[in-house]
Amino acid sequence: MLPSFASRLSERIKELDNPSVLGLDPRKEYVPNSLLEASADQGYSEAEQVAEAFGMFNRAILDALQDCVACVKFQSACYEQYGAAGIKVLAESIDYAKTLGYLTILDAKRNDIGSSAEAYALASIGQSPVKEGLWSAMDADAVTINAYLGWDGVKPFLEQCHERGKGCFVLVRTSNPSAVDLQDLVLEDGRKVYEAMADLVAAWSRELDPEEEFSSLGAVVGATWPNEAKALRSRMPRQYFLIPGYGAQGAGAVDAVAGFAFKQGGLVNSSRGIMLAWKKQGRPETEFAEGAREEALRMRDDLREALINA
Amino acid sequence: MLPSFASRLSERIKELDNPSVLGLDPRKEYVPNSLLEASADQGYSEAEQVAEAFGMFNRAILDALQDCVACVKFQSACYEQYGAAGIKVLAESIDYAKTLGYLTILDAKRNDIGSSAEAYALASIGQSPVKEGLWSAMDADAVTINAYLGWDGVKPFLEQCHERGKGCFVLVRTSNPSAVDLQDLVLEDGRKVYEAMADLVAAWSRELDPEEEFSSLGAVVGATWPNEAKALRSRMPRQYFLIPGYGAQGAGAVDAVAGFAFKQGGLVNSSRGIMLAWKKQGRPETEFAEGAREEALRMRDDLREALINA
Repeated sequence: MLPSFASRLSERIKELDNPSVLGLDPRKEYVPNSLLEASADQGYSEAEQVAEAFGMFNRAILDALQDCVACVKFQSACYEQYGAAGIKVLAESIDYAKTLGYLTILDAKRNDIGSSAEAYALASIGQSPVKEGLWSAMDADAVTINAYLGWDGVKPFLEQCHERGKGCFVLVRTSNPSAVDLQDLVLEDGRKVYEAMADLVAAWSRELDPEEEFSSLGAVVGATWPNEAKALRSRMPRQYFLIPGYGAQGAGAVDAVAGFAFKQGGLVNSSRGIMLAWKKQGRPETEFAEGAREEALRMRDDLREALINA
Repeated sequence: MLPSFASRLSERIKELDNPSVLGLDPRKEYVPNSLLEASADQGYSEAEQVAEAFGMFNRAILDALQDCVACVKFQSACYEQYGAAGIKVLAESIDYAKTLGYLTILDAKRNDIGSSAEAYALASIGQSPVKEGLWSAMDADAVTINAYLGWDGVKPFLEQCHERGKGCFVLVRTSNPSAVDLQDLVLEDGRKVYEAMADLVAAWSRELDPEEEFSSLGAVVGATWPNEAKALRSRMPRQYFLIPGYGAQGAGAVDAVAGFAFKQGGLVNSSRGIMLAWKKQGRPETEFAEGAREEALRMRDDLREALINA
């Protein structure tokens, strides 16, 4: 029996005493020119050139943070913009991160009905029907999913969690201002839509791993809504919260850890804050990885302090 | 000013007198062995081999149906399972379908917060930041999206609709049995969650193209829920309904057209029913394209009859 995603996660976070997640969501304008130039003149198309630069950017930051950050999240759309070349680099970056000991989350927010959800589960955290070929599947440790379609769109992902020690995070309360449009509508029983989603997640996780302290079926709960996060913890006592919104989106460390359960059970993501730290620090672009490391250490200490006082 | 997606769609459907959508959602087990063999022994990896077979399968069916079907839908996960090789073939198939005059829908059910939603919009229906390179973006005519995240996750897609004559379909009432889990919860104002989603879609479309008879922001409404579809039409009078569930998922023609508006405004999808018709018809596998055509014509006549009586 493989160790569960949640147990692997808990162990690595404890080991590094750091619940941070490095978000690798590259854009062309975030990547130092020197990397774009290094991938030019190799017979690449322009899309391949940018994608290769993303790969170099990712590897350098992953190298720089490997001893202090447990988890890395890749936002799929950033890579999908570059078509097949982007997907190739995404798969390679996930693979590289795993060899360095990171737990990898594919932030894909996938969803579909049963048979198509199964295909997404295989593509993201499963074994693709073809075993050979480096890019045949992402094989990330976990994936984010949208459960608007209900149980039969979630079940195929949980099968991969069960069989392959993988994890999932269901969107419950997202970090964006418009989260309120649908998620805050009030049901006749007094719950809000996102609270009903939280109750579904808690119920589904009892199908997966009722005996575990933390479930491998987690939830996405934005750091920008600390009061909601605190309240959601009582509905989802066993869920890992994947918490976007720290830093660039405006939430501080105290807000980010509001939904933790006894100082555990949370993962706080920073993407632009770490990727673009060199700019804010006034470093030359050649020092982007050192800048990322400095910011990652600052964020770690910021979260540690907030958790001491939590 | 480019013609809108909805106007292009209306014109093509009228021209062919057929509201059918061909769903090209290939699986390895759907593809005739002769195609898998034809793509072997070319130095391909196994993933590339399957993906190339998908490409041949798609082209043959697209060729066979071009004079009778207006629209083709590609379910993204089927291709994503094969990594970069699958994405390459998906982009090529979309491109090929467009050259034959089809309107193309990427069934990706994408969603994210603002800046990441923008990247998904660019990847699916936009111009990617890199213009060169065949696979730099899908450039489909329309894409399916999930609006659990609210307006700021939808807006970037509508920008592409506005600027590039593209379309979107928001998941409102999905065709699967578990659709009820979240979508049927009752709000304090008496609406169900999917009805609230329908109201949001109608409101958002008034931002996009209030003056058009049909909006380029459509809705996914499963054929398996004809009563709901009928009721949803009054909430979304200007929406094209993309209607999955006909055939393999169990709905007949009368159910499928239940949500049409005065015999218009609907798109009925069949995937397995058309792709696997040769098996049901007892044809040899070499006749898969002829089988697909026979079934597509049968489906067209089935829908025409249902619409006469609607």
